[in-house]
Amino acid sequence: MTVETVAWTGLLPGKVRLVDQTRLPLACVYVETDDVAVLCDAIRRLVVRGAPAIGVAAAYGVVLAVQAHADAPGVDVVGRAKEACAFLASSRPTAVNLFWALERMARRAERELLARRSGAEIVSALHAEARAIHAEDAAACRRMGELGAAFLKDGATVLTHCNSGALATGGMGTALAPIYVAKERGLSVRVFADETRPLLQGARLTAWELANAGIDVTLITDGMAARVFGEGKIDAVFVGADRIARNGDVCNKIGTYGVAILAREHGVPFYVVAPVSTFDAKIAHGGAIPIEERAAEEVTQGFGARTAPPGVRVYNPAFDVTPARLVTAIVTEAGVITAPDEQKVVELLARAHPPSRS
Amino acid sequence: MTVETVAWTGLLPGKVRLVDQTRLPLACVYVETDDVAVLCDAIRRLVVRGAPAIGVAAAYGVVLAVQAHADAPGVDVVGRAKEACAFLASSRPTAVNLFWALERMARRAERELLARRSGAEIVSALHAEARAIHAEDAAACRRMGELGAAFLKDGATVLTHCNSGALATGGMGTALAPIYVAKERGLSVRVFADETRPLLQGARLTAWELANAGIDVTLITDGMAARVFGEGKIDAVFVGADRIARNGDVCNKIGTYGVAILAREHGVPFYVVAPVSTFDAKIAHGGAIPIEERAAEEVTQGFGARTAPPGVRVYNPAFDVTPARLVTAIVTEAGVITAPDEQKVVELLARAHPPSRS
Repeated sequence: MTVETVAWTGLLPGKVRLVDQTRLPLACVYVETDDVAVLCDAIRRLVVRGAPAIGVAAAYGVVLAVQAHADAPGVDVVGRAKEACAFLASSRPTAVNLFWALERMARRAERELLARRSGAEIVSALHAEARAIHAEDAAACRRMGELGAAFLKDGATVLTHCNSGALATGGMGTALAPIYVAKERGLSVRVFADETRPLLQGARLTAWELANAGIDVTLITDGMAARVFGEGKIDAVFVGADRIARNGDVCNKIGTYGVAILAREHGVPFYVVAPVSTFDAKIAHGGAIPIEERAAEEVTQGFGARTAPPGVRVYNPAFDVTPARLVTAIVTEAGVITAPDEQKVVELLARAHPPSRS
Repeated sequence: MTVETVAWTGLLPGKVRLVDQTRLPLACVYVETDDVAVLCDAIRRLVVRGAPAIGVAAAYGVVLAVQAHADAPGVDVVGRAKEACAFLASSRPTAVNLFWALERMARRAERELLARRSGAEIVSALHAEARAIHAEDAAACRRMGELGAAFLKDGATVLTHCNSGALATGGMGTALAPIYVAKERGLSVRVFADETRPLLQGARLTAWELANAGIDVTLITDGMAARVFGEGKIDAVFVGADRIARNGDVCNKIGTYGVAILAREHGVPFYVVAPVSTFDAKIAHGGAIPIEERAAEEVTQGFGARTAPPGVRVYNPAFDVTPARLVTAIVTEAGVITAPDEQKVVELLARAHPPSRS
């Protein structure tokens, strides 16, 4: 039902197919390649974006790099795989999932080499590993969707901010997954999508992917959200997260904190949907999360035309922090924590990553 | 210090000079004309906008229509003046000040005719009336500025939304007037300007006019306001109003209600600055104010380029209503009412418009 943001096509050798997100929302065009250099460039140019989706694409990229060399000795295949990992890791600087996925691919390659597998067997194992990364991401999205859908009644209207949907993951998304699951269950759910200035991910991506999936979506500017809440139109807020601190403070796209305040003011529950990997247990609270400030031009000429006076001072933080006290619940693939605090977060992480019994 | 949005140049005959706001913020270009048709077209094309500024420009337009006919009999001059009033009234549909100013000009013309004045005397009287309308607007702006500046300390930082500045009036503006007066008094005041989607009046007009007047201004997107409040950067909010109900509920540009909620959440005072003419005593509360919904294209392709999927549903209310309970004070030229309610509004209006002793 949702768009297939990243796909492996064919068997082995095969290709990677990406929705070209630089062409959305005006055209849904696919990029298909069996060239790891083309894939790396696609990650760099934001043809594919969203941390989980990048991780999946990069894992497949490693397979592209080795699949033509199945006849080579195992050691050569592993060498090529590790070269590809280093190359792909240079594509984007901050997405944690990118490095995590590439390290997992490199470890699998080494494990296979230690087990004295042939080149062909290693290529096949790497393909299996990439497919597993993809499948696990899709399963985590679906699980978050199922857990989050419990908070949606038939006829509910949801407000979301930015894009935490299928276009950002290898599955049905995070914040949008409960909406897709609710629809599968036959519930009628409407969505108001904040356009999400400055980069308009809500207008360009969320409005597109929801409409494409047959969900009733209405686009508003960020400043209209308060009126929509005041009109009693919103039953729940669902947003994603870029990082969650140990005390449950949530770092997400700029504007999220304001939405959380509006939700509280109007008595509307505010749900954060994010995989367990989003938690950063080393960070005690949201104030300790570094917030990237981006170029003034995103605000002053984000759409080609210049819309602010030359030389004007601009403040352009890319993220903000919503304190845990404004979060009704955090929905993860390992369970839901309501009224999050440090103890509940630590318990969730312990459940999700049980210590090995060595 | 502030930009002269509308000016009469020369004596009689003279010209009207307007800042061409369709060219801002990229160029500050003036339109100067002695042709009432050109002036009417300028109002229609938003070369001049903002209800008080439109009223002043239209009053001068009546003078343009009659000044070449000072040698004609008085009855002919008055006929031409009334024709011009009807013509100018067709330029914009909703700005109350436009009709108010034109009615005042028409009444003055009739009064002069009843007093058997000559054509030349009537032209001169209409010129005086237009100048009086302009001067009264400028004086009201200054008075609001003086009263509002009392809420600003040296070093204060103000957040504002949309443009309620000199560019919207025949004087130093409404919401921005306290900032200009504070600067005249030697205080250092900084401003954060919400860009104010969809039409970007904050980015295009407020950032330009403040920078032009030497005020330290920082542009943010509407969704960044919550973070800026959370960082403790804002000491006061100043906004204008399009209409104020009898109970003190304030209708203003979409996004204002959200700013008011953020201000209350962070313990920051929220001031509304507007002339007495903004009150609509016939409207009991904000819920009874009709809210204009505008075209989807303002949201989906407000910058030339299309930034949302074709056919997407859009909700685009142009205004919202801030309940009186979120308003710290309303600043008018006739005085300040803190914690506004119906009794205080009725008393203010009675003071401003004392009943005639007939």
